[in-house]
Amino acid sequence: MTQQAFQDNYPDEFSYCYGCGRLNDHGLKIKSYWDGEESIARFVPDAHYIAIPGFVYGGLIASLIDCHCVGTAAAASIRESGLEPGSQPGPRFVTASLKVDYLAPTPLGVELEIRASATEVKAKKVVVIASVSAGGQVCAKGQVVAVRLPDTMR
Amino acid sequence: MTQQAFQDNYPDEFSYCYGCGRLNDHGLKIKSYWDGEESIARFVPDAHYIAIPGFVYGGLIASLIDCHCVGTAAAASIRESGLEPGSQPGPRFVTASLKVDYLAPTPLGVELEIRASATEVKAKKVVVIASVSAGGQVCAKGQVVAVRLPDTMR
Repeated sequence: MTQQAFQDNYPDEFSYCYGCGRLNDHGLKIKSYWDGEESIARFVPDAHYIAIPGFVYGGLIASLIDCHCVGTAAAASIRESGLEPGSQPGPRFVTASLKVDYLAPTPLGVELEIRASATEVKAKKVVVIASVSAGGQVCAKGQVVAVRLPDTMR
Repeated sequence: MTQQAFQDNYPDEFSYCYGCGRLNDHGLKIKSYWDGEESIARFVPDAHYIAIPGFVYGGLIASLIDCHCVGTAAAASIRESGLEPGSQPGPRFVTASLKVDYLAPTPLGVELEIRASATEVKAKKVVVIASVSAGGQVCAKGQVVAVRLPDTMR
């Protein structure tokens, strides 16, 4: 059975995110999946997402890490609660903090692989670490602290 | 005399950045200026840069902080060397690390003000802190460690 992307399990009202919303036609439509204990997303940036010709824009890398980690936070929260992923709309998390270390220039024109794992899963807070690789080389590492969506954003 | 934006002082080859390149027609074209000891940029996000309807996408906020701080790093480096800004192409910095703390949901539809200041200016490394405000309220704070462009990216 094909696994549903974490983001495709978000309710419609939370599916307009520029980074990962399936209903945002201008957006990146990042899709994240479980791969064992880790989560994975694959993404090929459009040619205009450059920093310097030949290399991927750092803000895009931050966006990939952000949405993939927030999706992973929601999915990890569902797993932690013992529910079957996709069986019901999961809790929606938002980013409290984002940290990215750019370890090497990220080449444009190849598929990027974003991997993440949750290092702390609590009811209202999930910490997720991530890496972005191009052609097997890790180009960036990141950490996201995700928190349950506050009522002020509903 | 109207002040030239930091990014408009980048050589052509470094002016294709999605975030701030004047030659990237798909990009955000972030423009940064001195305002005394601080630097300032103003930006109104397009309607599709949303996280959840009504609020700005966190990856865009990270991008604003990234490009504004890297531009500030270059400008601070020029200032530190005693040169007149705009008198010659400045050194080009890239992001080594980016940290963003999201303090409050950032409303969409209003002009954002990004302010930054360099807290450490060395020949090869500049540290810059920043804030993003909407309607006078600080919504995010960030820190960028910028380093001189490595030869591998030229």
